[in-house]
Amino acid sequence: MEAIKLESLTHFSDDKMQKIPLFDSEKYFCDLYCLKPGQDQRIHTHGESDKIYVVMRGAGLFHIGGEERELEGGHAVIARPGEAHGVRNTGEQDLVLLVFMVPRP
Amino acid sequence: MEAIKLESLTHFSDDKMQKIPLFDSEKYFCDLYCLKPGQDQRIHTHGESDKIYVVMRGAGLFHIGGEERELEGGHAVIARPGEAHGVRNTGEQDLVLLVFMVPRP
Repeated sequence: MEAIKLESLTHFSDDKMQKIPLFDSEKYFCDLYCLKPGQDQRIHTHGESDKIYVVMRGAGLFHIGGEERELEGGHAVIARPGEAHGVRNTGEQDLVLLVFMVPRP
Repeated sequence: MEAIKLESLTHFSDDKMQKIPLFDSEKYFCDLYCLKPGQDQRIHTHGESDKIYVVMRGAGLFHIGGEERELEGGHAVIARPGEAHGVRNTGEQDLVLLVFMVPRP
């Protein structure tokens, strides 16, 4: 059985946000993003893909489609195709995100 | 911004497991499953789809591809195409699962 304890896979780097692959097929990616305070995923856009972020712990400032909002653990948010999106860890705790991207870019 | 507080959408029924749609496109479903103690999603199979379960709270007994394993909050597991899969809340707490299914069946 392909079961994973998410916290056992988290790792952080002083260098930049860490992206940890969990599951994928030719149709999607499912990853963990691990951001130390101050780290970010720069704002970017995918023309065809939905990206769903689920905040597992910590809090992040999300920029999606020109709006900004801080979301903490237990929240989910989606960037639809063509919506510019990014996230920054503006808190003092580590930030862990579960991220689904469909289809793969 | 399409942001959701997951716990604000959970609801349970004495009748059966509740499935709450969160996000979707023509390519995938993203739902919350809410199971009271004793409730289950019966074992079934999809020929083409991956299904990812993420345990948000509670604990469930997962049956995937002929294996059984209890998983609690913070664990994720995948049923690949053709793998029989189901889950039962065998605990005393409510069970909340985040579920991704790609592609839609």
